[in-house]
This record gives sequence, structure tokens and C-alpha cells, in this order.
Amino acid sequence: MALTANLIGDRQTFVTHLECSLTGERYEADRLHGLSQAGRPLLVRYDIEALGKALPRDVLEGRPTDLWSWRELLPVRHTGSIVSLGEIETPLVPIPASGGANVLVKDEGRLPTGSFKARGLVMAVAMAKELGVTRIAMPTNGNAGAALAAYATRAGIETVVLCPDDTPEINVREIAAQGARVHRVNGLIDECGAIVGKGAAEGLWFDFSTLKEPYRIEGKKTMGLELAAQLGWRLPKAIFYPTGGGTGLIGMWKAFDELEQLGWIGSERPKMFAVQASGCAPIVRAFEAGEEHAERWENAHTVAAGIRVPKAVGDFLILRAVRESGGRAIAVEEEALQRATAESALQDGVLLCPEGGATLAAWREAVAQGWVEAGEKAVLFNCATGLKYPLPDRSATLDKDNLPDLARL
Amino acid sequence: MALTANLIGDRQTFVTHLECSLTGERYEADRLHGLSQAGRPLLVRYDIEALGKALPRDVLEGRPTDLWSWRELLPVRHTGSIVSLGEIETPLVPIPASGGANVLVKDEGRLPTGSFKARGLVMAVAMAKELGVTRIAMPTNGNAGAALAAYATRAGIETVVLCPDDTPEINVREIAAQGARVHRVNGLIDECGAIVGKGAAEGLWFDFSTLKEPYRIEGKKTMGLELAAQLGWRLPKAIFYPTGGGTGLIGMWKAFDELEQLGWIGSERPKMFAVQASGCAPIVRAFEAGEEHAERWENAHTVAAGIRVPKAVGDFLILRAVRESGGRAIAVEEEALQRATAESALQDGVLLCPEGGATLAAWREAVAQGWVEAGEKAVLFNCATGLKYPLPDRSATLDKDNLPDLARL
Repeated sequence: MALTANLIGDRQTFVTHLECSLTGERYEADRLHGLSQAGRPLLVRYDIEALGKALPRDVLEGRPTDLWSWRELLPVRHTGSIVSLGEIETPLVPIPASGGANVLVKDEGRLPTGSFKARGLVMAVAMAKELGVTRIAMPTNGNAGAALAAYATRAGIETVVLCPDDTPEINVREIAAQGARVHRVNGLIDECGAIVGKGAAEGLWFDFSTLKEPYRIEGKKTMGLELAAQLGWRLPKAIFYPTGGGTGLIGMWKAFDELEQLGWIGSERPKMFAVQASGCAPIVRAFEAGEEHAERWENAHTVAAGIRVPKAVGDFLILRAVRESGGRAIAVEEEALQRATAESALQDGVLLCPEGGATLAAWREAVAQGWVEAGEKAVLFNCATGLKYPLPDRSATLDKDNLPDLARL
Repeated sequence: MALTANLIGDRQTFVTHLECSLTGERYEADRLHGLSQAGRPLLVRYDIEALGKALPRDVLEGRPTDLWSWRELLPVRHTGSIVSLGEIETPLVPIPASGGANVLVKDEGRLPTGSFKARGLVMAVAMAKELGVTRIAMPTNGNAGAALAAYATRAGIETVVLCPDDTPEINVREIAAQGARVHRVNGLIDECGAIVGKGAAEGLWFDFSTLKEPYRIEGKKTMGLELAAQLGWRLPKAIFYPTGGGTGLIGMWKAFDELEQLGWIGSERPKMFAVQASGCAPIVRAFEAGEEHAERWENAHTVAAGIRVPKAVGDFLILRAVRESGGRAIAVEEEALQRATAESALQDGVLLCPEGGATLAAWREAVAQGWVEAGEKAVLFNCATGLKYPLPDRSATLDKDNLPDLARL
């Protein structure tokens, strides 16, 4: 189904088991799982020692650089389970004018369906296919639903997607175009999630909500793996991550641990900054209050739909990673994120999505507060293409039959 | 300005001169040029023999795979001239359900600003910077203007962009967001071009119209270079290319010649299919009439804005390449291109742009007519992300306070 050399033939796999992220309770691999008994996300565990012996780092470095170059560190057993749409390594693009000399945007909008959600969903759909799932449902703020639809369609799996009724129009339409049945719901993403959960309890479908199945986190983990390889196995000083459900932040943190166990990186870690909007900042509130869990944020609102997540099931994992790293959770005002988005395009030619703009605003805030130094290498995650979001109309008109002085154009 | 190893330090360059594509008249390299004296595009020539000695193929294969891995085959002399936004190698994505087992989509929507125009403009802007240009104007149907704006902004070059007043809204807005001054004109792209030409004659700006400066073609050439490398130096049997100005088709044809001179590929060539819409098919009309040049197409119309080009300055180069290759120019009906676009998304999870959909429709027609065999390897160029184009709304609504039987979703 795909051309990369990483998808020609099976490769050795090293999954040993899954475990509850809260209690450490052990679960069997190669079986369908949702949350743990304790109602928490399951984490996939590997025999890292055997993996390290089987896969020298230079072998990995000789492979095509796409997501599937990491197969030994991923849960899929059989190549035939994988449906690929071309999961390329995303570039690191400097934004010297609107950011700083060492500020790099990891442009995740280059992935299939235009967002980082492709990483999680390509993995989760492959595992669903491997484990015999035939019907999936999911709540989404947009991009996750689009990625699910594309991959599930390709895998021959039926999908039902529920989204808040003010989800960006383009997202709703692309989800349907790619073969899912889409319903707009008069509520936020967690309310859509409750309906998905109800249907799953009735046996109607498998629940693909963020972190409610164990494999999206493994796909998102590749952001951390890829970043390490791209930067020559030296992690940046800081990572700014737009945080809704937080799968990517949790996934990167797990990736760094696995890379250290392999001996491919040392014990240094970037400061992890969980970026939220001031209109929906449950993680920031919990971080500042010193809490381990985050309460639901009422009346959530922000133009950055992807981080409008009032309640995250992996809240304690996000908070733990942020704190262990010496980073912070940062809330940015709407005006600051919109200004950052506009300036990145206008000054550096890089059209960020609003969530990506939020990370630039947060980086600016972190520099202002002295949480990071302006010259330190920082990576901002632009989680989706800026083309999915509305832009202002700044064009003029010109009458070809009645031209003005062209010097004034 | 960028992280790829291909942009660390200068590399040897091999440009010897430029020549008129019609008369062969010779022009000096490293000077600013527009069209030739004969009013035709200029082609860049290299010392291929010296290049072959300096750059063994395995050295090239060891480099990061982005566009700048081809630097010895490109015109830019100095690394400092390059403004990069992350010009990654675009993936080849199979579409087995809507196309066939050997039909691959080259997904150019993954490039900066979401289209293949980035290839031409990153090169042309680098050369403009190298040669001291400070102000550029360009007519566009959308994507070229967006790419120009992003790169020129980053290079510190002022830009004026003129587009037909029915250019897709998202394009007009992204061009302005990325720092260009955009004007909507009550005319088609060649009428916008005439205004740009008038301003250039008045000395107001440098004219960046398709093929009117010599370097966009060198950037687009990388589509052919990249394709050859990705397919293990064996070209596909057929290439379907959405053809407006035709720079990419001309560029690929040039690339294949240069690769053969290097001894990296043999003399076999793909059949080149120039794909147009039946509402704007000047190249098809000229092809079928056995003409060397194509007359302007009056009352041009098609939803595929990128190929709504009534008159191409490189018409004879397109026609020559198509004929030499044993390919054809094919016009597809609106309904066929829209059906192909819809089916690729719905059946394969690949959201093509309308111009990309046109190539799938043309491939289907070519199979039906026996011009290609269904099982032969064919590459379709999806020139831009499908996310830039309007999609139908196929969503339903759901009331969270009054849920229906979920089994019916």
C-alpha cells in the first residue's frame, strides 16, 4: 500500500505488554484494550534491551526518514496491518523574524490530512485493523476526525465521527469527504465523547477517543523520536506544545525515556511547555495550583479549536511530564496568539495554525518571564496547516479596463 | 535559515550559460534575464560532464532527500541566497481503489504553502535575491502567488500579486497574510499578466510570470529528479500532469535529459500526458490539430483554477515534450474531474485538489482508450493540497439532550 522501504516486509517487534499509566497494572499485548481498570490510559511497553541489540542506531539512520523507520519502537506486528498515506518526516523551519534565531517550527501540517493527528491515527487504525475492529467512533475538534476518516476508509473500517457544532467548516467537510459519517453536536468535545462512550457501552463501535485506546500515543511518540534524530540526537532546550488532550506531549516524554534506555540520548531533557488558551486552560490552572489532576474548564472558548479541550483523561501524565522537565503550563490570550500567527506569516512566510500561533505567543511569554533564554534552541509544534483556518481578506481590486498608476500598487 | 545539511555551506555549481528555448541563442549566466530576444523562455545549461565527475550518484543518495540535495543541478551559486521553508521530498501515495494497483499520486500539497509552486518559486526567489532584485510582480491563479509571497517575504523582497477576481478566496487571503500586496482583477490570468508586463516595462518591478524568468523551471525540474530517485532510477511508464503554464512538464522533461546525460537513467521515457479541463484546453486543441503553438482559449472556465490558463508562453515546449514522449494532451470534463476527486477521497482517503482529480480522470480516460495499460506504473501529480478547495457539506446534526438510537448513526 505504500512505497517506502520501511513498509516492504515485516520487521522484528518488541512489544512485551501494556500497563496502566496510574497503577502500573499489567495487560496483555495483542488484544483489544480501552482504558485500564482504573479508568486511565494504557502505555505500551517494549523489550528495549533486545531492541537495542537488534537495531543499531546507524541501521536506523540509513533508512528512509518517514514515520515507519521507527517500526521496532512501534506496536504494529504485521506490515499488512499498515495503511499508509505517506507519513513523511516533518521539517523544522526557523522563524528568525517573528521568533528568534534558534526558534524552530516543527511543521506538522505536512502530514497526511494536514495535521499531526495523522501520526496517532495511522498507528491506532493499523492496530485496530490488526486486532479485528470493524467499526470505530470518535469525538473530535476537527483534525483527529479527518485523520481517522482517511486511514479508516483506506483500511476498510467504518467510522462515525462526532464534533462540536462550531467545528471549523473545512474539517467537518473533509471528514465526510474521506468516508466517515459526521454528526455535529450541540456541545463541546467531552460531551461528544460521552455519546461515543455510550455507544461503545452498547457495543455499537470501538471508542477511539484521545488516550482511550493505547496506540495513538505510540504514533504521537514519533514526534519525539523524529526530533531527536533530526537534531543529531541532541534534544532542544525547550519544547512548546499546544495542549488539548496532550497525547503528543505524553508521547514525546515517553519517547525520550525509551531513547535514553537505548543509550541513543543522555538524561538531559527539554523543558516541556504545555500551551493552552486563556479561554480553556485546565492544565495551566492545575499546574499553578500544584494539583495532580485538572478539573473540567467550564465555558471553554478559543479560536484555537484544537486546544479547546475542557477535560483531558491524561491530565496527570501531562502535568507530571511538564513538572519533571522543569517546564510549565502556559495560557496565552486570544489576542496574543492571533498576533503571533499573523506575524509569523507576515515576517517569516510561515502560516501557522492558531494552535501553532499559541506556541509562538507562549515562547514570547516564556522569554519575557525568563523561563527560557531567547537564544536557546526551542521547538514549537505547528500541529496543523494554517490553510484550514479562516484568514482576513486584505486584497484590493483593480479594473483592467481602467488601470490606475501602477507605481501605486 | 534552514536546518537541512544540504544548506550548510556552498556546493560546487555548474551553470555555464542560458539559451533561448526556440532559437538556441546563448545568454550569459549570473545576470538578470526575462524572455529571450525571440520572446521565448530561457533554459539554464550546465556542464553536465564536470558535474557527473564531481557528484557520484551514491553521494547524492546519502544526502537528506529534500529539494536542495540537487544543488549541483540547480542554478543558485551561494547558500546565502536561499530562503528555505522546508522543501521536503513529496511522497508517492498509491490509490488502489479509485485508481489502480500501480497508480501513484505524487502529493505536492506537502510542500511549503501547500503546492508544487513552492518548487519553482523557492528557486526563482533565490536567484532574484542573488541577482539583486528588490521588487517582484506576478499574475497568479492562486498557488503561485502564495508561494511567491512566502519566499519573497522571507527574502526581504517586495511583491505585488495580481489574480483573477474569482480566484479561490483562501488563496487570495494567504497571499496577503504572507506579506504580498494582492489585487483582484476583472480578467483571467493572461490579462493579469499583461498588467504585470506593463509595470515591468515601466521599470516598476521584475516580471515573475510563468516562464518569463528562467529559474522557476529549474525548481520545477526537481519533480523529475526526485521521481527518478524515489523509484530507484527507473521512471514510470506514464506521467499525468495538470497543465496550465506547463512549467513542471517542461522541467521534468529537461530533468530526464540531464539525468540521462549523467548516465543515471537510460533513454526510456514515460509517456507524458498534459491534462487540461475541457473548458480550457488550448494545448489539447493544438495537440490534436498537429500545431506547434497553441492559440488563446476564449471564455476559459473550469473549477480547476490552476489549469485555467488560456495561453501558455511555453506552449511549443509542452507540445514537443508530449509528442516526443509518445504521450498525449487530454481534456477532461468537469463532471469527470469532480467525480475522480470525490472518489479518491472516499475510496482511498486521499483528498486531491481539482487539478489532481483531473489527472485521475485523464488516467481513467487513457486506460479506456488504450493509451496506457491499467497495470502499468503511472504517476499522477496532485499539485496542491485538496484543503484549499471547497468541499460539499455532508454532515448531519445530533442533539446531545435528545439522543436518537445511536445504532442509526
